[in-house]
Amino acid sequence: MNVIRTIAEARAFIQARQHEGSGAVGLVPTMGYLHEGHASLMRKAREMCGTVVVSIFVNPIQFGPGEDYETYPRDEARDLALAEAEGVDAVFIPSVEEMYPQPTKTKITVAEITSLLCGASRPGHFDGVTTVVSKLFHIIKPAYAFFGMKDAQQVAVIEQMVRDLNMDVSIVPCPIIREQDGLALSSRNVYLSPEERRQALVLSGSLKAAQAIIEQNPEVTAGEIRTMLREHITQSPLADIDYAEVLTFPELSPIADSEQALGTDRGVIMALAVRFGRTRLIDNALIQPKVGDSHV
Amino acid sequence: MNVIRTIAEARAFIQARQHEGSGAVGLVPTMGYLHEGHASLMRKAREMCGTVVVSIFVNPIQFGPGEDYETYPRDEARDLALAEAEGVDAVFIPSVEEMYPQPTKTKITVAEITSLLCGASRPGHFDGVTTVVSKLFHIIKPAYAFFGMKDAQQVAVIEQMVRDLNMDVSIVPCPIIREQDGLALSSRNVYLSPEERRQALVLSGSLKAAQAIIEQNPEVTAGEIRTMLREHITQSPLADIDYAEVLTFPELSPIADSEQALGTDRGVIMALAVRFGRTRLIDNALIQPKVGDSHV
Repeated sequence: MNVIRTIAEARAFIQARQHEGSGAVGLVPTMGYLHEGHASLMRKAREMCGTVVVSIFVNPIQFGPGEDYETYPRDEARDLALAEAEGVDAVFIPSVEEMYPQPTKTKITVAEITSLLCGASRPGHFDGVTTVVSKLFHIIKPAYAFFGMKDAQQVAVIEQMVRDLNMDVSIVPCPIIREQDGLALSSRNVYLSPEERRQALVLSGSLKAAQAIIEQNPEVTAGEIRTMLREHITQSPLADIDYAEVLTFPELSPIADSEQALGTDRGVIMALAVRFGRTRLIDNALIQPKVGDSHV
Repeated sequence: MNVIRTIAEARAFIQARQHEGSGAVGLVPTMGYLHEGHASLMRKAREMCGTVVVSIFVNPIQFGPGEDYETYPRDEARDLALAEAEGVDAVFIPSVEEMYPQPTKTKITVAEITSLLCGASRPGHFDGVTTVVSKLFHIIKPAYAFFGMKDAQQVAVIEQMVRDLNMDVSIVPCPIIREQDGLALSSRNVYLSPEERRQALVLSGSLKAAQAIIEQNPEVTAGEIRTMLREHITQSPLADIDYAEVLTFPELSPIADSEQALGTDRGVIMALAVRFGRTRLIDNALIQPKVGDSHV
């Protein structure tokens, strides 16, 4: 496995691979501190691509003031071992100076779908994400890029950018990976105290309960689901809700309280962001319309 | 010569050319109504590249309200004939619907160097330029892209975008082409009445006079040059000055009135925008530091 620290080396590696005719390039962009969720992206990439590159870069411009850029967990040796075990061809792990030799004057902004959920709580966050992802795309030139659906809004925002800017890359969204007890895997889970970790199960628990209700009663309204999610989460005294929303997916349009949550012609996402102490966790569940429903 | 109207066709054409091993791809992005300035870009591209693509697209999102998007001159038949005569391999001439099937939610913004000159007079203009140029780069994937120095700020902005976003393309700035009497070629010159056309010579005339003064007296200050340019231009009763500026190039940093215009370690640009009736013309002159000066 190649460990690549400069943009010039990365370009040369990709060019050499393409010269060898080693098939499609797949990119798994990460911020490191890799877990089974990232591993599942690498396996999907390995399945689909002749060349798999994992990037590891804690991107300063997607963190706001007072957020956890400095303390974001890092463990390069463990990350490289995990990538190697997954049969990755190269890890691109540039320094901040390599990616931003000068502060960037250029930013990519996606309007509308970044104004709510994490975009509302973390102003500028998605500009930082789209800007760095476009840099990685321009350096690695992947045919496929793999993103976890835990960051569902991120997937929607990146798909919008790719479509609007005619980037020649296919975004492959991959399912959320969970602990046995339901907690969605996140590099930030390491911040949780044992008690916070226990109470954090209200995220997946509330989503599961809401899904069960929707299955039993497809006419349930978005407002009823919102109330249900909030009531479930507030059972945990440590939980501080940032948002608990029901939206269309991937457009992320609001669904009125009085409107039926489930649509026949659109996906629905239930999306949560909840703080436990200083740790902000997100989770979501997506309900896609059943094929054929719209033809009844 | 191929005339290509869809993005899918453009991608297929480029892929086929690269498959044939026909060398570097050069892109000349234009808004059409081609003149000798554009032709000089095509010749430079032909010199440097195995495949030359000219794009013709009057990009609505770089025009502000009340600007000349609707009336911008168009002549497809003449444009295609000119491109063909220059030995261009393909003209990419998409419709607005092809480039913007939905209104774009994604924009690329370059800060600081877009806040003055044309950026100040035309808010949002450069966001429209960088956004469409990035789309064209993603569709055509040129190794080289050719831009005229008449739009010097545009060159600086695009070079900044390319650097910040790690786009794998070299920007090739090409010299301003002028009429015999000095008027810089522009598709918008066609708007001028005969009297406006005559008076418009104050743009190139004032720049030439300023250059002569700088050559005679290298200590002349930026303020003296600004005054000189304005005095020269206002000799034309129809001229309405938008700006007459002296800045560093390519950073486009202001030079104080009291400071010497000419630098030993930086380029200087004198940049003009002047209205004649409803027509806004731009022109500029660049003075690069003499090699060796900084080692004296």
